[in-house]
Amino acid sequence: MLEEVAGGVIAPNGFVVGSTHCGLKGNVKKHDIGIITSEYPCKAAALFTTNQIVAAPIIYSRKVIKRGGVHAIVVNSGNANACTGERGYKDAETMAQLTAKELNTTPDRILVASTGIIGHPLPMQKIKKGIIKASNSFGNTQSHAAHIAKTIMTTDLAPKHIAVKIPIAKKEVTIGAIAKGSGMISPNMATMICFITTDAEISLNTLRSCLKHSVEKSFNQITVDGHMSTNDMVAILANGMARNKNISFSSKSELALFQKALDHVTQQMAKAIVKDGEGASKFVQIEVLGAKTILDAKKIARSVAESPLVKTAINGEDPNWGRIVSAAGYAGVKLEESKIKLFINKTLIFKNGLPVTPTPKNLPDQMKKEEILIQLQLGIGNGETTMWTCDLSKEYIKINADYHT
Amino acid sequence: MLEEVAGGVIAPNGFVVGSTHCGLKGNVKKHDIGIITSEYPCKAAALFTTNQIVAAPIIYSRKVIKRGGVHAIVVNSGNANACTGERGYKDAETMAQLTAKELNTTPDRILVASTGIIGHPLPMQKIKKGIIKASNSFGNTQSHAAHIAKTIMTTDLAPKHIAVKIPIAKKEVTIGAIAKGSGMISPNMATMICFITTDAEISLNTLRSCLKHSVEKSFNQITVDGHMSTNDMVAILANGMARNKNISFSSKSELALFQKALDHVTQQMAKAIVKDGEGASKFVQIEVLGAKTILDAKKIARSVAESPLVKTAINGEDPNWGRIVSAAGYAGVKLEESKIKLFINKTLIFKNGLPVTPTPKNLPDQMKKEEILIQLQLGIGNGETTMWTCDLSKEYIKINADYHT
Repeated sequence: MLEEVAGGVIAPNGFVVGSTHCGLKGNVKKHDIGIITSEYPCKAAALFTTNQIVAAPIIYSRKVIKRGGVHAIVVNSGNANACTGERGYKDAETMAQLTAKELNTTPDRILVASTGIIGHPLPMQKIKKGIIKASNSFGNTQSHAAHIAKTIMTTDLAPKHIAVKIPIAKKEVTIGAIAKGSGMISPNMATMICFITTDAEISLNTLRSCLKHSVEKSFNQITVDGHMSTNDMVAILANGMARNKNISFSSKSELALFQKALDHVTQQMAKAIVKDGEGASKFVQIEVLGAKTILDAKKIARSVAESPLVKTAINGEDPNWGRIVSAAGYAGVKLEESKIKLFINKTLIFKNGLPVTPTPKNLPDQMKKEEILIQLQLGIGNGETTMWTCDLSKEYIKINADYHT
Repeated sequence: MLEEVAGGVIAPNGFVVGSTHCGLKGNVKKHDIGIITSEYPCKAAALFTTNQIVAAPIIYSRKVIKRGGVHAIVVNSGNANACTGERGYKDAETMAQLTAKELNTTPDRILVASTGIIGHPLPMQKIKKGIIKASNSFGNTQSHAAHIAKTIMTTDLAPKHIAVKIPIAKKEVTIGAIAKGSGMISPNMATMICFITTDAEISLNTLRSCLKHSVEKSFNQITVDGHMSTNDMVAILANGMARNKNISFSSKSELALFQKALDHVTQQMAKAIVKDGEGASKFVQIEVLGAKTILDAKKIARSVAESPLVKTAINGEDPNWGRIVSAAGYAGVKLEESKIKLFINKTLIFKNGLPVTPTPKNLPDQMKKEEILIQLQLGIGNGETTMWTCDLSKEYIKINADYHT
């Protein structure tokens, strides 16, 4: 039912993108400013970082999203426009004004996003030229799609994009996305961003609810280093051009289909961010099962996922069950040690409060794999969750200790 | 008033120690089992790990401490007796029985502590011989003091001990301690331990309260990697041999003196653990000032202290204010960005929501120092706290990724 297609954010009908380099990433000619827009105005929803220290474009975009109607997203990389005071807010506003002018719309319909270095004012002359140039390059070719995915990259090693098609009441609906990581993230090279486009016809409240549900099961379930940035943002624009029967809370089956497709898109993007985490050599899926509540399961998954000792053990390909079990033990959740079972890549290695002896023979080979599945069965309820993370390597320290402000 | 003296746990009157090697640390002839005891029975208080997964000796010692009367502590390194099931508990009980027999007392007056590898049963034949041999070596020379401090070490690079004398109502009271780290800590090479002895005459409830206060301001304020172990334990024995006027809640000035001395002992031990943290090259003191409440201040201090990005920046000697301020921002505490001031080694580097420009000239030299003081003034209240941590280095990854179970 769900078919992956090419194109990322330009895969849905009616979306075009433009991007260029305006000099925000030093002398290299990498694209650093771009615009995502739609022929028709969009309904829009977005979620932002919960950090108390937020970048200027987040403050601006929060106001835009309250109205729910969006015509375009303007985004730059190379400079986060964070910790830039009043001037920073005016600069974000100016980005919206310049973009609105090019698109014959109003600034209150423009989402603004920035990612890159913190504490430096935006070079507005470069930004201005960049917005004009990006607007003159609008299109929806695969080359456009590739460029916009690269435009939002900072320390990412690979561009991240996806698009899927689903049939909704005999019409074809498409959802596309681009995303960036990569450290989850150095506040100096902030941040996590994901832009999603769709041609679905959908009610605004339903769109908001769908995004919230999908983010809960994707971006809110990943951690690279537990350091939340000042610029995190996930936004979705829906232009209705698929002309499907309107998706709303009352159209349950269509809603379920759309939600499932959106879940797929956000989960693939979330996994791609973890796989491209700073210094990551392994992708780790942590499943906590049998917890008393989902919240308990989440606390334990996060405790395991963020333990530097668990992460270094995985980096060293060591099936260190003691670190995993004890990380679960300090998550602030009541446990019964004797009921816990721990599996690594489906091999049982801890039960009844004791390690399985002799150590299963296939374990060393399993630890060498690039994908590690940790399953903790707590045996005290039905709460469960899945979290994704990566290992902690010397390369992570190198990237982040050798980086200088 | 407060004078540091030699001897660690044997500095107070009436305490003797014995230790030996019984073969728990492989073939090296390092001391791995020891006993701390007193001529006279002691009042005792202790605090234990809050991890839900706890080692057998912790379960045993919790029962002993409820009664409040203790004659000795028996401790081994090289094996944590954790995740060892029912057999583990019986082994801890046997350690108490063997020690009690040597000391002509009852097992319910023996605290048991173990530290080392998780998930392996104790080799009880070796332990038995060790306890007998250690009992036959009791003494209170400086050589005894040095040996007992080394006996509890696992991956620690240096032994940790301290003793202080204070006058209480014209009598000389002494408090001594030994402690071990060092990773805060690999659950496989668990754990944090601190044993404190004193010849003070003090009421049991007062002793319990004093220990709780001191630990709150010392061991509960340190973090190396945020991974809480299964074996953490801080215990104090008071034998009353200083024959001072009894310290109780009603003798306010004596109580204050004793509390101050105990604070000094625990803080010095806590700092020593951080300085010897796995891979640590810098000692970092984080002071959060002007928070709405002390709890808010603690949340922020911990968020900064445990951010891998802050820790790697300090390792790289980079004054990365963006990482510090944004780590404060995601601590789950409401902040006013414009009111925050950040100082590194007393140099102001961030205020009014902006970095101080130009960057203060002395900053690069300050970052090269071995001790880094981070002060975050939030400007919204009177809550404050101090926390100690270390940097995160490639050496930490090496120690913990190359370690194999």
